[in-house]
Amino acid sequence: MRSPARLLALVAVLLLVLSLPAPAVAGRPLVAPRKPAPAEAAATARWLAAQNTWGVLSTISSDLSGAPFGNVVSYSDGVPGESHGIPYFYLTTLDPTARDALKDERTSFTLSEFPLGTCGEKDPENPSCAKLTLTGKLKVVDLQSPEADSAKTALFSKHPEMEGWPKNHNFGIYKLEIENIFLIDWFGGPKPISPAEYVEYGKDQGSVMFF
Amino acid sequence: MRSPARLLALVAVLLLVLSLPAPAVAGRPLVAPRKPAPAEAAATARWLAAQNTWGVLSTISSDLSGAPFGNVVSYSDGVPGESHGIPYFYLTTLDPTARDALKDERTSFTLSEFPLGTCGEKDPENPSCAKLTLTGKLKVVDLQSPEADSAKTALFSKHPEMEGWPKNHNFGIYKLEIENIFLIDWFGGPKPISPAEYVEYGKDQGSVMFF
Repeated sequence: MRSPARLLALVAVLLLVLSLPAPAVAGRPLVAPRKPAPAEAAATARWLAAQNTWGVLSTISSDLSGAPFGNVVSYSDGVPGESHGIPYFYLTTLDPTARDALKDERTSFTLSEFPLGTCGEKDPENPSCAKLTLTGKLKVVDLQSPEADSAKTALFSKHPEMEGWPKNHNFGIYKLEIENIFLIDWFGGPKPISPAEYVEYGKDQGSVMFF
Repeated sequence: MRSPARLLALVAVLLLVLSLPAPAVAGRPLVAPRKPAPAEAAATARWLAAQNTWGVLSTISSDLSGAPFGNVVSYSDGVPGESHGIPYFYLTTLDPTARDALKDERTSFTLSEFPLGTCGEKDPENPSCAKLTLTGKLKVVDLQSPEADSAKTALFSKHPEMEGWPKNHNFGIYKLEIENIFLIDWFGGPKPISPAEYVEYGKDQGSVMFF
């Protein structure tokens, strides 16, 4: 038999659960499957790309005489559960990042494990709190192409409000063609991963649905 | 007189508050004072710098032929409640960011409001979810200077584990000398703020203790 105190605590928890707002979808980290072990470098990089919804896109600034310029952007590498590793972006040339990339495609995209909440008590700069930098070229995707259609589906599934953003801002779809991968997920320096290993991860298991 | 349902709800909330774990210190957003109004540009920029504990530092990569390279780093712009706006970092040349900066000081540092949890349902790329990019030069701070002592106090107060990081990794203290500020905190494009306005914010009110 339950004691009155335990019963009260149970009712308390129930009341609070019922009164909490439903978790938001837009831009929040998705419900994360298990973080891969540190030795699984490609899996960890793909997990970071699949679970985050925003990161920092760094370009060579044309406004600031070639200085590096990092900007906060949303992205998607696939609809939830069908991640492909390639980040797509929805950008307007009203913003310097897209303008920079049209003049100099060299770009990097940086993600942290920290906002996913899985680093526990570890500092964001602790090497075991994973961080990923994808470096390559930021390319415009032809809006008439089938690739643009799937990119839109991927973006709008994780960022529903994008679909309603002003048409006259001329948002375009951009993707990062990855040439170099920098992953820190443990002590001992960055893990070597080739772009091919990263993109092919999971395909040999007959599944790109892992994340 | 309170109804039994309201009393029960009150007890429920009390029980839950008592059962919640204490908030962690290391690298977590600090308890945020009210977000300044979007029109208060310098205040908003300083608030973002004071409340976040990590961001992305972008350099010109010497390993990647001058491509922009963003890296996740921890920082501090003062002990909690005594923020000064200038970000200090604890970096090792085992990591490419510090090596890059020693060859080319041009750097930007990027922060988002999103991980603070105050953007509500808004997408991380929504202009009203604030984002800040400080661009300038990343400078080494002389470890024998009084500035290094206060930088260490600022860093270790927000990142306690740093104090125990391996001595043989030769961590140094770096600071960003800010030359340009890019703040988006509302619709209508970036807000113009000069580095002087940013650094001087709050001083005329006889207080730099606002954040």
